[in-house]
Amino acid sequence: MILYDCTPAPNPRRARIFLAEKGIEVEKRQVDLAAGAQLRPEFMAINPFGTVPVLELDDGTRLHDNASIARYLEETCPEPPLLGTTPIEKAQIAEWNARVEYEGFLGIAEAFRNRAKGFKGRALTGKRPYEQIPALAERGLARAEDFFVLLDERLKESRYVGGARFSVADISAVVAVDFAGRLKLEIGTDQAALRRWHDEVAARPSYSA
Amino acid sequence: MILYDCTPAPNPRRARIFLAEKGIEVEKRQVDLAAGAQLRPEFMAINPFGTVPVLELDDGTRLHDNASIARYLEETCPEPPLLGTTPIEKAQIAEWNARVEYEGFLGIAEAFRNRAKGFKGRALTGKRPYEQIPALAERGLARAEDFFVLLDERLKESRYVGGARFSVADISAVVAVDFAGRLKLEIGTDQAALRRWHDEVAARPSYSA
Repeated sequence: MILYDCTPAPNPRRARIFLAEKGIEVEKRQVDLAAGAQLRPEFMAINPFGTVPVLELDDGTRLHDNASIARYLEETCPEPPLLGTTPIEKAQIAEWNARVEYEGFLGIAEAFRNRAKGFKGRALTGKRPYEQIPALAERGLARAEDFFVLLDERLKESRYVGGARFSVADISAVVAVDFAGRLKLEIGTDQAALRRWHDEVAARPSYSA
Repeated sequence: MILYDCTPAPNPRRARIFLAEKGIEVEKRQVDLAAGAQLRPEFMAINPFGTVPVLELDDGTRLHDNASIARYLEETCPEPPLLGTTPIEKAQIAEWNARVEYEGFLGIAEAFRNRAKGFKGRALTGKRPYEQIPALAERGLARAEDFFVLLDERLKESRYVGGARFSVADISAVVAVDFAGRLKLEIGTDQAALRRWHDEVAARPSYSA
């Protein structure tokens, strides 16, 4: 398998950690997002949506986002389980993963892409150019702060984001929290549960994948 | 089971169609979103995120979004399958469902909630009040139009949104397309594949659930 990757970007990092947790090694090919390589014809032929990660299977089939990559890998390589085992656990992990994407990634990306000079005219991923909206950068930052509060509350009552077991929801959440560091948003000294969880997740070998 | 529902709202409609496709009957309780009932203490005790749908299981466990509801119901009531059967089908349905949420629902909701008078100070779902951003309403409309183009292209090559089989991705997509009608966005006369698919999905009994 081949992973189309970009080391500094948050979304392909989610795929790399997922693969590392499963113990799967793949060939990695860098797509230089800073240079706009994801929108060049060579890469658009691989992923017409102009985003990474992409996982190319041995038969040439390509999976174009983290949702499909996680689901495929869980089905074909079930151990260790990262999407849950019982129906209720699967449901709660899916819910928390969606919540992290919606409450976490979206706000952080809004704040980041609507403010950083390098994203002028590219406030959304993909091929259509969208201008930055300054008010959205501000709102994104407020959402990112709320997200840290939400995670801290959750982690007061639950060892991991999705429940008692490490899961894809932790992978998404730790990548989102680290991504927020680029907004200079750090875990607050009063957010002890979030700190405890981050230390624990960061100690896993997959964290540096 | 009890579904906390709101008949006119798009997100609980997704859960209703999913349940209808599975042939599962549940008690439905209306939450009057127009009156702000989702943010009152009675409902916040049921779902602290202040959103519908919520599915309450017979043991009292609550699932608070469509991701968890779909996953739980698929696991406990596998027929007919709505999240795919083979690993690759499951992955591609997950990918298209995520794409419909991100490219479809988000843009349409941005356009709708940042423009409609009734959503002043409630530009995002949930308890935190967010002011409307007019530039975001405009951008959302452009994204919604792009989404119709994307779906039409997809449906030229695929019978259903997720592949050869009707799935949760069709449920999400048909609800998104109908939701866009509130922006006066209709299927274009040149979007024959999208029209063919919509007619087919709308003829299913679940469409009026």
